[in-house]
Amino acid sequence: MNKTSKRPIYLQLKEKLFDRISSQEWKPGDCLPSERALCEEYTLSRMTVRQAVAELEREGVVTRVQGKGTFVAKEKLMQPLLKLTSFSEDMRLRGLLPGAQTLALEKVPANKAVAEKLAIAPGDEVILLKRLRLADGEPMAIETAYLNSELCAPIYDQLAENKSLYQLMKRVLHITLSGARQSIEIAPVQSWEAKLLRMPETGMVMKTERQTLDTHMAPVEYVISKYRGDRYKFYIELFE
Amino acid sequence: MNKTSKRPIYLQLKEKLFDRISSQEWKPGDCLPSERALCEEYTLSRMTVRQAVAELEREGVVTRVQGKGTFVAKEKLMQPLLKLTSFSEDMRLRGLLPGAQTLALEKVPANKAVAEKLAIAPGDEVILLKRLRLADGEPMAIETAYLNSELCAPIYDQLAENKSLYQLMKRVLHITLSGARQSIEIAPVQSWEAKLLRMPETGMVMKTERQTLDTHMAPVEYVISKYRGDRYKFYIELFE
Repeated sequence: MNKTSKRPIYLQLKEKLFDRISSQEWKPGDCLPSERALCEEYTLSRMTVRQAVAELEREGVVTRVQGKGTFVAKEKLMQPLLKLTSFSEDMRLRGLLPGAQTLALEKVPANKAVAEKLAIAPGDEVILLKRLRLADGEPMAIETAYLNSELCAPIYDQLAENKSLYQLMKRVLHITLSGARQSIEIAPVQSWEAKLLRMPETGMVMKTERQTLDTHMAPVEYVISKYRGDRYKFYIELFE
Repeated sequence: MNKTSKRPIYLQLKEKLFDRISSQEWKPGDCLPSERALCEEYTLSRMTVRQAVAELEREGVVTRVQGKGTFVAKEKLMQPLLKLTSFSEDMRLRGLLPGAQTLALEKVPANKAVAEKLAIAPGDEVILLKRLRLADGEPMAIETAYLNSELCAPIYDQLAENKSLYQLMKRVLHITLSGARQSIEIAPVQSWEAKLLRMPETGMVMKTERQTLDTHMAPVEYVISKYRGDRYKFYIELFE
């Protein structure tokens, strides 16, 4: 550490720790040495070490797990935007085991926003399907899908069995999807969502809203998803 | 308020206030009544009112401005992803006055990540252009562009004059852009960034990374942008 520098010591330490992470001395998922060990190694106070680690945590470089230690954060999953493949297919392609937990499956009247997105009248029946999405057992996202009830009624019972929505649409309903409109923004979580996603109640998620259309340009579904901001990164590529 | 309900009073109040905002009784930019006025109107304690307003603030529905009051948040700007139009054109299309403040314009050696994105060797010279972007005088984003130095040297001096990068590329360098690869994620801000963007130091931004290619598929620029999460929403539409 350069004690004559104007740069605070804790930031200098933070950079040294960061270098050891970037150089893969400590790899994603590895546990960092204890605060005490770091104090000894760098001959610094507990306070300074704590500040340096807190800064790395704020930047998402490390994650503190209560009672277990501080771990190098896992790399974020790259999620293609506007993908018309299912979450399950997508996870399998990455070598992860997809999982889903149905939180709600109900027929409900469409509110104004949902009706507009599905091109139906407010009050018309829609199918609400809310699911927690998992990858290798780790909660990743909460997905709330609104489906046109008239169109999707024949697959309602099979939705309860956690089958792939897109495959059911294709095989049973012969619906071919042609495209989608999607928005993406930062949003806060509700406390019940934070619990399910195993993240802090004050945390932020990536919220996406997607309207998917079939080949006749009729909206088939309207999906609001909340992805863990620390585990997801979206990706898109477009050439003319 | 329903005092026999199990739902906490502050959450009931929050919903009532939210309804008055959604119904446009209070419009974006409007100042909310003072805490005292709300206490009187709903015959509730200061503490309850404060909790309700804090919850609305956490959800991004209202914004507190020190010494000025609490305001209904402005609507987020919809930013098309992968747009190959300039920030300035884009702002003008929305009827906003675009602005830019050059924070840095320098020739620097490419680090490993930048070199990879620009398909050059680490250590090769690149042009670094860091700008604060404004709309109607309000800070919106910090943009850091790395340009292939060999390609862009002829426009270096004009970049200092805050001219549109894409127009210079087209007119002076005869470069036609063909497409881009972009990622988008939640990221923390550095404290100097927070100051420039007039947001809290603990706030989060939408971080995008874009690699733009010309018609020969040669990377022309690599841009890292940090957009205010409370003011931006990204948007994309894709049909097969």
